[in-house]
Parts: sequence; C-alpha cells; structure tokens
Amino acid sequence: MLVQNDLLGYERIKIFQDSEMFSFSIDSILLASFVRHNKKLKKMIDLGTGNAAIPLYLSISTQAQIIGVEIQEKSYELAKLNVKTNQLSHQIEIIHDDFVGISNKVGKFGFDIVISNPPFFKVDHTSRTNKNDYLTIARHEVKMTLEDLIKEANQLLNNGGSFYMIHRPDRLTDILSLLREYNLEPKRMQFVLPRRNTNPNHVLIEAVKGRQPGGLVVLKPLIVYNKDRWTKAILDIYNIGRDSYVTESIKP
Amino acid sequence: MLVQNDLLGYERIKIFQDSEMFSFSIDSILLASFVRHNKKLKKMIDLGTGNAAIPLYLSISTQAQIIGVEIQEKSYELAKLNVKTNQLSHQIEIIHDDFVGISNKVGKFGFDIVISNPPFFKVDHTSRTNKNDYLTIARHEVKMTLEDLIKEANQLLNNGGSFYMIHRPDRLTDILSLLREYNLEPKRMQFVLPRRNTNPNHVLIEAVKGRQPGGLVVLKPLIVYNKDRWTKAILDIYNIGRDSYVTESIKP
Repeated sequence: MLVQNDLLGYERIKIFQDSEMFSFSIDSILLASFVRHNKKLKKMIDLGTGNAAIPLYLSISTQAQIIGVEIQEKSYELAKLNVKTNQLSHQIEIIHDDFVGISNKVGKFGFDIVISNPPFFKVDHTSRTNKNDYLTIARHEVKMTLEDLIKEANQLLNNGGSFYMIHRPDRLTDILSLLREYNLEPKRMQFVLPRRNTNPNHVLIEAVKGRQPGGLVVLKPLIVYNKDRWTKAILDIYNIGRDSYVTESIKP
Repeated sequence: MLVQNDLLGYERIKIFQDSEMFSFSIDSILLASFVRHNKKLKKMIDLGTGNAAIPLYLSISTQAQIIGVEIQEKSYELAKLNVKTNQLSHQIEIIHDDFVGISNKVGKFGFDIVISNPPFFKVDHTSRTNKNDYLTIARHEVKMTLEDLIKEANQLLNNGGSFYMIHRPDRLTDILSLLREYNLEPKRMQFVLPRRNTNPNHVLIEAVKGRQPGGLVVLKPLIVYNKDRWTKAILDIYNIGRDSYVTESIKP
C-alpha cells in the first residue's frame, strides 16, 4: 500500500512509501542531517537511496546536484515518483543500478560527497534469507559487502571529499580499518542511543579522502527518545516543535 | 612532596603520590574498574603501572597475581612503597623496566589479563618535549609507540586472554586497526564523557586474543560529572556515597 507523508516539519517535502517495502526510516534522516555541506559542494551521490529520503532531505539545504542509486525496481520507481512529486527533477537524478561499479558509469573522482545507509547485516552462506526479497536486500549484504561500498566511495570521491555512512557499532573495527585501507580517513563520528541509558544501536561516520591519519573527533552521543517523546536534538533534525508527539509509524 | 591518600571508599588501600610527579589519576581507576575478572584468572600484568594504582585497585576484588612494570625510577620506588605499605607483597610484584620486550623476561603467552594506561600523545621529532622529564615520559610516546604496546600485549596474553586499555578517542582508528592486526579483537568499548553534554575525552577498550572478528559491544557512555559532583557511576567505582563531594585534587 502506497502512503504519503510530509517530511514532518518540512511540509514542502512529501514522501511516498510502500508499506510492504523497507520504509524510509529515521536512520536515513539522521545520516542526511549529519552531512556538513557548503555552497562550494557541487556533486553528491547517495548509494542505495531507497525511496530517495536522503536526497529529498538534503535538497532543503543545498543546491548541489544529487544522484541517488537504487538497485531494487520498486524502490527505484518510488524514488522517481518522490522526485517528480516534489518537483526536484532539476536537482535529483535517480539511477536504477547496482552501486557496486557505479563509478564506471557516473564518473570517477568527481563527487564532493558520497552518502550511504547500507545494508547492515552480514550474510552467512547457511542463512535462510531469501536473496530476492526486498527486505533481505535492503537489510543484508546480499548484493554488496561493506568493503565493496567503501571501495566504491573511494572511486567516486574527489580528493578532500567526504564519505558519510550510518552503520551498526558492532562493525566498527571493520569500518574504521577498511576506511583507512581505502584512503578515507575517519574524521568525525557520533553514536546514536535510543535512550540515555541504552547502548548505542547506530553510529554515524564521516571520512575524508586523502587526509592524514588521526584527528578523529567523537561527538557527544545523539539520544533519540526521552521517555516516549523525541529529544530536542531529534525534533530539531525534523524541524518540528518541542511539544510534538512521537509518530509511532516512523519509530526506528 | 609525598602525600598519602585513601583510595576513597576503599579505606583499606593507601596510596602515596609525589605531587611533583604524574599523580594517579581517575583514568587508571576507570580502567581498573572496566576489567572483568573471575576466579579462574591467575596472572595479570599492568604495563606502565606508575605508582601501582591499578594493581592496588584490582587487589580489592581479585586473588590473581599481579605484576606492575614501570620504567621511571621514582614511580617505581613509589609503587614498591605502596605495595609494601598495603601489605600486598604476596600478590603484587613491581618490576623496574621498559615494558617493550618485557615478555622476554616475565614469559610469553602466560597472562590472562594485560592492562595499560599508556602515554597518549604522539611525539613528533621537532617537538620540544624534554625526553627525560617525568611528565613527558608518562604522557608522550617517548619510550614506546601504540604499536609497541599492542604487540607486547599480544606476546604476553594467552589465547582467550584480554587486553584492557584507556586512550583518547582521536586515536580510535589506530587503536582498532592495530588491535586486529595483532590478533586482539576489540569486543567491548566505553566512551568517557566529562559531562553529559561534552564530547568524550577517553575511551576504554577490551580486546580478546584469538577471537573471531566482529561482535564489538559499545556500552552506554560513562559520564564523570553532573554539575560539580561525581555521577553515581563514578561514586560506585570509588565505593563512596552519593553525598560525597568531588575531591578537587584528583579531578581528571
């Protein structure tokens, strides 16, 4: 079933989602809001864009050209519909393709920013995941590995360009080691805690291509809920007032 | 000037410090309390033990044999005095030596736990640090590098044994990459925040020798101060009541 929502406080942006598919989640919005950009940045690309939530969010604050790459046909169609509905075809282009190897098609070393909210879970060969299932592809490393993604980010970025990713803390050693191996030095990191007294369940990372090793800044954690309400930090990201209640349907 | 303190709530333990030297700091106590141990553990070693704060703290809760290694003569003398004063010579041995290469003297692959609160800061060759100065040696990588330390931990630990370290978040990529390179897989991590709304200034790490990659658990952050008082988490570590005031002299 296709449903349409505002991007909360950003009433200008409408997002269609298919309730049977992987919905746009708070993860993507946290990642999009973690991106630091300025007027000098001309080209961005979002690897595994889903229904284009990240390009739509970024369009609020940047004039840069944004490409979204999506392998799953239904998500790709939804992304295109979202771009059209929001009259953003001049700024956002959606490509229906595997993002592994995409630098051969969109050009190497030409992007200022690469973003990805990738599948989080490793696939083991004995697992009974259905490899054609939408949710499986969106959540598991079926079509790509973490190393494929990081290698592709290296191939897309210009020198000094930034790669932004959200992932699970339990993969942190893989993430930091692979980033450095592919010349993307981790420079900024923030853990996301569902609540003040819980362990983090996500980590936001910015790595800059071609920079000297070291100098990683770990920010104070981002806390999502205080009791059953979003914290001020999250309300600010969604551009909504402090008194708004949590929308159940987009809980992480 | 030599001063003697209780280890706060642990009145049984007295610690002498030289106010002109690198005093035992909260870092060491946070690290010692981060160590997970049980009755099966027989042998522990603390690399760069200073005045032996870590072995003294651990002696409260373990019967294991503990070796402390200290290269600086004055700190070594103080560590010996502290062990003797607390009548712990049967449990704690202090060795006056460089910890780089210490596995050749105390035995390879025989320790259940290796601990270190090492110097945090890289030395660059143009820096004007006085390489014989106590504070410089305690704070800078003059006598060893982070890689020397991690390599030595690998040489000391038995398979399945744990290495515990406290360090600065800005070195996290170095730390996680080197640990994995030396077969010490990061399994548990906790950031230390001076206050709830500040970035972390320290990180506690446990890595286990010979374990499969992945499965790192990042714990909720440890917060040190709430306004000008220690938080309950810190008071618990020092075994003192909630109403106690912060002792100015041992602020981190």
